[in-house]
Amino acid sequence: MHAFAADLWPLNRSLTGDGVRETLRRIGLRVPELRVHEVPSGSPAFDWTVPDEWNVRDAYVEDAAGNRVIDWRRNNLHLVGYSVPVDAVMTLDELQPHLHSLPDMPGAIPYITSYYAPRWGFCLSHAERERLGPGPYRVRIDATLAPGSLTYAEAVIPGREAAEVLVSTYVCHPSMANNELSGPVVATQLARWVASLPDRRYTYRFVWVPETLGAIVYLSRNLREMQARTVAGYVLTCIGDDRAYSFLPSRDGDTLADRLTRQVLRHHAPGFREFSFLERGSDERQYCAPGVDLPVCSVMRTKYYEYPEYHTSLDDLTLVTPAGLQGGYDAVRGCIAALEANRTYRSTVLCEPQLGRRGLYPTLSTRETRFLVRDIKNVWAYCDGRKDTAAIAERLDLSIARVAELQATLAAAGLLEEVAP
Amino acid sequence: MHAFAADLWPLNRSLTGDGVRETLRRIGLRVPELRVHEVPSGSPAFDWTVPDEWNVRDAYVEDAAGNRVIDWRRNNLHLVGYSVPVDAVMTLDELQPHLHSLPDMPGAIPYITSYYAPRWGFCLSHAERERLGPGPYRVRIDATLAPGSLTYAEAVIPGREAAEVLVSTYVCHPSMANNELSGPVVATQLARWVASLPDRRYTYRFVWVPETLGAIVYLSRNLREMQARTVAGYVLTCIGDDRAYSFLPSRDGDTLADRLTRQVLRHHAPGFREFSFLERGSDERQYCAPGVDLPVCSVMRTKYYEYPEYHTSLDDLTLVTPAGLQGGYDAVRGCIAALEANRTYRSTVLCEPQLGRRGLYPTLSTRETRFLVRDIKNVWAYCDGRKDTAAIAERLDLSIARVAELQATLAAAGLLEEVAP
Amino acid sequence: MHAFAADLWPLNRSLTGDGVRETLRRIGLRVPELRVHEVPSGSPAFDWTVPDEWNVRDAYVEDAAGNRVIDWRRNNLHLVGYSVPVDAVMTLDELQPHLHSLPDMPGAIPYITSYYAPRWGFCLSHAERERLGPGPYRVRIDATLAPGSLTYAEAVIPGREAAEVLVSTYVCHPSMANNELSGPVVATQLARWVASLPDRRYTYRFVWVPETLGAIVYLSRNLREMQARTVAGYVLTCIGDDRAYSFLPSRDGDTLADRLTRQVLRHHAPGFREFSFLERGSDERQYCAPGVDLPVCSVMRTKYYEYPEYHTSLDDLTLVTPAGLQGGYDAVRGCIAALEANRTYRSTVLCEPQLGRRGLYPTLSTRETRFLVRDIKNVWAYCDGRKDTAAIAERLDLSIARVAELQATLAAAGLLEEVAP
Repeated sequence: MHAFAADLWPLNRSLTGDGVRETLRRIGLRVPELRVHEVPSGSPAFDWTVPDEWNVRDAYVEDAAGNRVIDWRRNNLHLVGYSVPVDAVMTLDELQPHLHSLPDMPGAIPYITSYYAPRWGFCLSHAERERLGPGPYRVRIDATLAPGSLTYAEAVIPGREAAEVLVSTYVCHPSMANNELSGPVVATQLARWVASLPDRRYTYRFVWVPETLGAIVYLSRNLREMQARTVAGYVLTCIGDDRAYSFLPSRDGDTLADRLTRQVLRHHAPGFREFSFLERGSDERQYCAPGVDLPVCSVMRTKYYEYPEYHTSLDDLTLVTPAGLQGGYDAVRGCIAALEANRTYRSTVLCEPQLGRRGLYPTLSTRETRFLVRDIKNVWAYCDGRKDTAAIAERLDLSIARVAELQATLAAAGLLEEVAP
Repeated sequence: MHAFAADLWPLNRSLTGDGVRETLRRIGLRVPELRVHEVPSGSPAFDWTVPDEWNVRDAYVEDAAGNRVIDWRRNNLHLVGYSVPVDAVMTLDELQPHLHSLPDMPGAIPYITSYYAPRWGFCLSHAERERLGPGPYRVRIDATLAPGSLTYAEAVIPGREAAEVLVSTYVCHPSMANNELSGPVVATQLARWVASLPDRRYTYRFVWVPETLGAIVYLSRNLREMQARTVAGYVLTCIGDDRAYSFLPSRDGDTLADRLTRQVLRHHAPGFREFSFLERGSDERQYCAPGVDLPVCSVMRTKYYEYPEYHTSLDDLTLVTPAGLQGGYDAVRGCIAALEANRTYRSTVLCEPQLGRRGLYPTLSTRETRFLVRDIKNVWAYCDGRKDTAAIAERLDLSIARVAELQATLAAAGLLEEVAP
Repeated sequence: MHAFAADLWPLNRSLTGDGVRETLRRIGLRVPELRVHEVPSGSPAFDWTVPDEWNVRDAYVEDAAGNRVIDWRRNNLHLVGYSVPVDAVMTLDELQPHLHSLPDMPGAIPYITSYYAPRWGFCLSHAERERLGPGPYRVRIDATLAPGSLTYAEAVIPGREAAEVLVSTYVCHPSMANNELSGPVVATQLARWVASLPDRRYTYRFVWVPETLGAIVYLSRNLREMQARTVAGYVLTCIGDDRAYSFLPSRDGDTLADRLTRQVLRHHAPGFREFSFLERGSDERQYCAPGVDLPVCSVMRTKYYEYPEYHTSLDDLTLVTPAGLQGGYDAVRGCIAALEANRTYRSTVLCEPQLGRRGLYPTLSTRETRFLVRDIKNVWAYCDGRKDTAAIAERLDLSIARVAELQATLAAAGLLEEVAP
C-alpha cells in the first residue's frame, strides 16, 4: 500500500481534472471491477452544480534572473486549487495578497483551494516567503478552467445478498499522504481482499470520489438504491499514520455500523478515540445528512484536524508508514469480517444443551471446569433470537470474531438456528 | 420590581382576606389583563373546602403599663395566621403556650399559620420572648373569621395559538420577601413583558393564588382546559435573592418544560442546582399531582428550605435585591423566549446545502474554515424532522437562542422547513 | 436451620440415589406439602437423559496392614461422585491417576464428580496424599450404577392467585455446608413460613432438585405452566455463611424479580454485591435459558466461586453459621414479603388530598412540618397508576415495606385505589 501511495503521490488531484482521472486509472489496474464515470460540468446534484474542469500545465513565480522561486512542478501544493490562469509581472507587494504561508509552521506549505470563487494564488513555506526579494516577478499559471467533467469511480462486488456495505474514500487531494492518499490505497486493497473472498454474504460498493461534491454527485445518482440496500458503511480517510486509532460515529451513533465498529475497535485498538459527529469533516457529512440517513461511520488512524501536519506539505510519506496503513487496513477488514459474521441465532434446545456428549465440555467436574467452557455457555445463553453477534460480543466483552466462532461451533452441533434479525 | 415589592410589603396577606385583595388590586394596576375572582367560603374544590375569610384589624399583647410588647402593627408576622379572636388578661405562664419563637435564631420572628384548626398565637423573636416579665398581660386579637371568600387573580394574554404557557405564583405570605413577594412581582413584570411581545406564539396564563388551596381551587375550575392546552408551566417562588439559581423538575422530570428549562439554565446560570421533585414544596405539588399531570416545573434563586432566613422575619427586602430579582426574571424570560423559539425543522435539501453561494460559507478553504461555520452546519445536520430546537441545543451544547438564530438564518435561506413536532 | 443442616450433613447426596431420597424425606417431615417424584433412568428431558442411579455402600483404600488410608465412611467427599465399582490391588503409582487433591490447599479434600463419563477416583487432602507409601493398596468401591431413578421434590402452597413465586434449590451436593446444605434448609424454613401466612396472594412453588439435570427434568415437565404463572423466582444457594450478601440477576436483569430484589437488598444489606449473569453457576442457567425465560434471580450470602473453601471439605458447618443462615433467610423472606405487598395504585383525588382532616398531617404549619409528612406525600404523589410499589420505593429511596405501609394507610383513608399493573 505504501508503494502504491508513492506511485500516486505526484499526480495533481483536485475536484476535477486529469490528476483524478489518472489516479482512478491506476486504481483500476488493481481493481478490475472499477467503473469510471464522467459527470459533465453544469450537471446539477441536489443543491449543487458540477463546476468547470480544472487542469494545470505549469505554474510558477519567476524572478528577474529567471529562477523559479515558486514552482508547481516541484510540489503541486504550491498552487491554490482551482486558481484561474494568470500571466503577469508584478512586484512582491502586488504578489503578497496572493501568497499563503503558515508563520507558525515556517517549513510547511499549506494546502488551499478556492473551488467556488474565481481566485488565484500560491502557497509556500513561510521561510521561503520571507526570503523573497522586492521583485519584480513573472507570475504564470498555465491552467484551464473550462467545461469538462467531474470524474469518479465505483466498484460493485456482488455477494449472495443484495444488501450492501459501502466503502467510500476521496481522490481530490494533491500531494499529501495521510489526508489523503491513505484512504484510496486502503480502499483499493480492501476491494482486492473482498473480491478474493470465496463466499461473500454482502454486496460491496466501493466508491472513490472527489470529497464533498463527488459524494453529493454520487448520492444524487444512487440515493434510493443505497437507502434500500446499505447495512453499514465506512468513510476511509486519514488511515495511514501509525499514531492513533479514531472512530467517528454516524449522526445519531446507534446504527449497526456504529455498534459493530466500536466492538471491533475495542479489541483491535483498545485505546482508540471516539469522536463526536459534531467533529466530522469528511463525506459522512453527506451520507449521514438528514433525509439521506445512511448508516455510515468513519474509521481513521489520526483524524484530520488532530495532527499538526494536517493540510500541509508535512503530511507526507514519512508520516504515513507501511505499518500505519496496515493497521488501518486491518481495522476495517476486521469490521467487514465482523459484518459478514454477524448473525442472530436462537437456541434449538430448551435449557442448557449437554455439551459433554458433543465433546464441548469436560466430563470431569472440578473447581476449574467452569473457566474452560464459560465463553461457549455464555454465548449460547444469549442466543435468544433477539441479540445479534455484535450485541452478544458487547455483552460478553469478547471480540465479534470470537463470538462468531463459538456460534459456528454451536450451530454446527445443531444447537443454534439462525433467525431473521 | 424591588420598589413594587416594597410597596406590597406591609399588606397582611393570608389564605384569604383584604391583604390578598389589595395585593391583587395593585398588581392589576400594572397588568390590565388581570381578572380577580372571589370564591365563597364553603365552596368545594376537589378534596378541599374554602374556609371562612380572615381579616385582622389589630392584634397585640399589652403589659400592665399599656406598652404593646407584641404589636401586629409593627410586623404582621407577630400574629399566627388565621388566629381566632381573643380579648383576655393572662399571666406570662398562661400566655406561653400561645407564643412561638426560634431559640436558635434569637433575632428572628417565625412565620406560623393554623389554617385548618382554630387556634390563636403570637410569634416573636426569642430575644423579645426572654425579656417578657411575669405579667399580667392584656391579649387582644381583633380579627374576624367569618364566611367571605377566597380571592385569586389570573391574566390570560392570548397568542397566535391556543396552546398555553402557565406562570403561577402565590400571594398568601405576609411580610416576607424571597418567600414570597419575589414570585408575585417577577410574575407581574413577566406578564407586562409578554403582553408587549409583538407576535406571541403561545397564549400565556398568569395566575396569582394563595398557595396550595388557591392552586387547588384554580385547578378545580380550569383543569380540563389546562390539560388540553398547557405546553409548559412555571411556578415562581423564592426568585429574588442573589445567591443561587435552582431548578425543580416536574414529577417525572422529562417534559418539554424540563428539557428546555435545563438547557436555558445551563447557559444562563451554569452553576444552577437541580433539585429532585421529592424536595418540592410549592404549587407544583398540585400541578404535577397524579391525574393532573401538567408539565410544570419551578425556577428559583435560593430555594425554600435552603436558606436560614426562610419563613422568618429575616427574609426581608435586604435579602431580596434588585439584582436578585432581575436575575430570576431574566432566567424565566429566557425560558419563555426559548419556548417561543422552539421548533422542529427538516432540511429541504438532500446532502449539505451549498452555503457558499448563500453567503453563509467562506469561498476560500483553509485550515481554519471549519471553525467559522461549524455551528450552522451542525444545526443543519440535526434538523432531521424529529429533534426540536431544545434537543439540538442540548446535543450541540449551545444555547437555545443561538440554535434558534441559526435555524432562522437557514429557514430564511430556504434550507429548512418547519414540521409538526 | 443450622441444626437441620447438621442432621442432613452425613447423607451421601449425589445426582441420584438414596442420599437424595433420605434428604427429601427429612425435608418432608417439616414441609407437609412436599411431594417426591421419581423419574426413571433413561427418561428424556430436553437435550438430556436421566442416567443410571448411583448408590454407594462402602469405598476405601486400604494399605497392606489393613488400615483404611482413605475411607468414604469418614467423609463422603473422598469418593469421586458417580465412581464406577472397583475392587483391585495396586501400587501407589497405579493409584495416582485416580487421586485428586489440592496442592495449594493441603488440608482440604476437593469435591469432584464425573456424572457423564465412567470413571472412578478418590479425593483426599494433599497432606494425606503426600504421606501415602508406595503400596500395594487394596482399592474398593462397593457401589452400584444401575437403572433406577432421579428423585426430586416440590411443594406447591396455594394462594389467592394462580400467579406463582418460584423458590428452587438443590440437593445433590454431599457433605458441604454453604454449597450446599444452606439452600435446602433455608428453602425448607421459607416454605414453613409461607404456609403459615394467613392470606397469601401468590401461589408458591418450592422445588428441591439435583442441580442442573434436576432443574432440566423439572422444567421439562412443568415449563408451559411455569411460563404462564411465574411472576418472580429465586435460586437459593450459598446462603448460609455470614460474610457477604450477593445478588445475581436474571439473564437480561430487568424483570420484576430483579427490580424488587435489588430494592430489598439495598435496605436489608446495603453493601450487597451485584454480580453479572455472566458469572452465574446454578439453576438460573436453566430458568433463564433462552426460550425458558423465567424471571428468576439468585440471592446468596458469599457466592460460589468467591470463597476459598468452595467445593472442598472446608465448606463445613463452622463456615455456615446460625446467623449466616438467618441473614439469608431474612433477605429472601423480605423479598417474598415485598412481592406480596407490591401493588400499583392510582390516586382517587385530583390535587393533594387534605391529609389534615384525616389525621395524617399536623394542623399547625411551622418550619418543621414538611419533614413529618414528606414520605406519605411523596408516596401519594407517585401513585399515578403506572408505578408499582417497588418502583416508588426505588424513586424515593425507601424500603418497599415502608412504601407499602404508607400506601395501605392512604388506601384505608380512601385516597388510593388499586389498578391492574
